[in-house]
Amino acid sequence: MKEETTSGGVRSVQLALDVLERVAGASEEIGVSELAVQLGTTKGSVFRHLKTLVERGYLSQNPQTSRYRLGVQSYVLGHAAADGIDLLSASADALRDLRDELGLSVVLSVLQGRRLVVVDTQLGKSALEIGVRTGTELQLHCNAQGKVALAFARQLGVDQLGAADLPAVTVNTVTDRQELKRQVAEVRAQGWAAAIEEETLGISAIAAPILGLNAEFIGAVALVATVQNITRQVDPAQVHALKKAALRASWNLGYRDGP
Amino acid sequence: MKEETTSGGVRSVQLALDVLERVAGASEEIGVSELAVQLGTTKGSVFRHLKTLVERGYLSQNPQTSRYRLGVQSYVLGHAAADGIDLLSASADALRDLRDELGLSVVLSVLQGRRLVVVDTQLGKSALEIGVRTGTELQLHCNAQGKVALAFARQLGVDQLGAADLPAVTVNTVTDRQELKRQVAEVRAQGWAAAIEEETLGISAIAAPILGLNAEFIGAVALVATVQNITRQVDPAQVHALKKAALRASWNLGYRDGP
Repeated sequence: MKEETTSGGVRSVQLALDVLERVAGASEEIGVSELAVQLGTTKGSVFRHLKTLVERGYLSQNPQTSRYRLGVQSYVLGHAAADGIDLLSASADALRDLRDELGLSVVLSVLQGRRLVVVDTQLGKSALEIGVRTGTELQLHCNAQGKVALAFARQLGVDQLGAADLPAVTVNTVTDRQELKRQVAEVRAQGWAAAIEEETLGISAIAAPILGLNAEFIGAVALVATVQNITRQVDPAQVHALKKAALRASWNLGYRDGP
Repeated sequence: MKEETTSGGVRSVQLALDVLERVAGASEEIGVSELAVQLGTTKGSVFRHLKTLVERGYLSQNPQTSRYRLGVQSYVLGHAAADGIDLLSASADALRDLRDELGLSVVLSVLQGRRLVVVDTQLGKSALEIGVRTGTELQLHCNAQGKVALAFARQLGVDQLGAADLPAVTVNTVTDRQELKRQVAEVRAQGWAAAIEEETLGISAIAAPILGLNAEFIGAVALVATVQNITRQVDPAQVHALKKAALRASWNLGYRDGP
C-alpha cells in the first residue's frame, strides 16, 4: 500500500510536470480538454493538477477564457536557475563579443546528464534570423555541438549510441558508426567540429567545447548560419574566433589549458 | 478511495513544488536530509520526489557531493514563461531608459491573482547597488508598489486587508486602516505613490501603475533608492520620469488614456 501511494505520488508529479511542459510548449493559452487529450488522461485528473499549479503560481488562468498559460512562479524559478547555471554567466560576454565580431548567430548548449540542451541564442545581425529555441534537446550525431559533446564529454561516446540514435536526418547526416567515430576523434584532436547541412539543408554550424575544472565538458558554443555564411571550406577566421570565445568561457569556469 | 488517491496526488505535487522552491531558495547546493527537516517530512519521501525532479531535469545532482541544485529544465521553463509575461517585453525599453535617465534602481512587479511579485530589477548606477530579488512577494500596505496595487487593481482593496496584513514594519509604516485608505485614494487621484522608509529604514520608493486594456492593473514600476536620492519632498522630475515610463509600458499593453 505504501509503495502504491508512493509510486502514485511520483506519477502525480510526473503528470504535473507534463502539464507544465505542455502549457510551456503551447503557442497560445491552452484549455483543460486539450491537455487531457494530449496527455491521454481524464479531464478531472488534469484539472486537479492544473488547480494545484495555479494555486502555486506556476500557471495562471485567463479569467475571460478559462484557459491556461505559464505563471510568474515559473519565471521566478527559471530566474533562480539561471543564477545557478555557471555557464550562462561565464560565457555571456564571450558569446556577445563573438556575435558582434562575426555577425552570425551564436548558440549555447549545456550538458545535463546525457542530454545536450540549448540554453541561449544570441541572434546574428542579418535580416534573416537564425536561432535555436531554448530548451531544444540536440541530437548528438548530426550537429556540430553534438559531435563536440561526443568528443569531450566523458559520459558520452559513439559506442553508446544505439542504431536508433543515428537516423539520417538529411542526405548529409553521418549514419555510419565508424565514420562518426573517425570524425569525433578528429574533433577531439582539432578542438572544434563542423556540421554542414547535416541536420537541416541550407544550415551549417561549427562548434567548440566549453570545459571546466579538470577539463570536464560543460557545454558547447556554436556558430549557426546559412551555407552562404558557413561554407564547406570553413573560414579559418571563424574557427579562430569561435575557439577563442570557447576558451574565454572555459577560463571563467576554472579550466586551465595544458601543463 | 479515489478521492484519497486524488488528494494524495495533489499533495505529492505540492511537496514536489516545495522541494523545488527550497532548492531554488538555498544559497548553495542542498542535501536530502536538510530538505526533509525543512519540509517536516521523511527523507524517503523527499528522496522519491527529488529523484523524479532530477529525472525530468528540473533539478540536478552534484555527483561529487550528492547535493542538489536547480537544473536546466527549470531554466527552460522560466524562459518560456518570460515570453508569456507581456509585461516584461512591453516594459523593458521604458525601464532601461528610466534607469539611464535617473541613475536609480528600477523595480518591476506584476500582479498574479492577489499577489504582487517582483519580476525584474534594473540596478542603478551608484556604487551602492539596491535591488529587490526576483520572486519577492511584496506586502501591500508598506511600500509604494503595494499602494499602487491597492489603488488600481480591481481585485484588491484596503477593506480586504486583515489586521494581520497591516503590521508595523518600521516606525513609518502606515498601520491605521483609515489613514491607508486616505493615502490610497490620493494615489488613485495623482497616479503615483510614495513610501518613505515605510518598509526599510533608509530606503524610499515611488511607484506608478502599468495598466492594460480597459485600464486593467497589470503591474507596477518603482524607483527604489536611499533617502539621500528619494527624499520626503519627492523631486517632481523623478515623478515625471516615472509616470512617463509607466505610461509607455501601458501603451505597449493596449492601454489608451481618457475617453
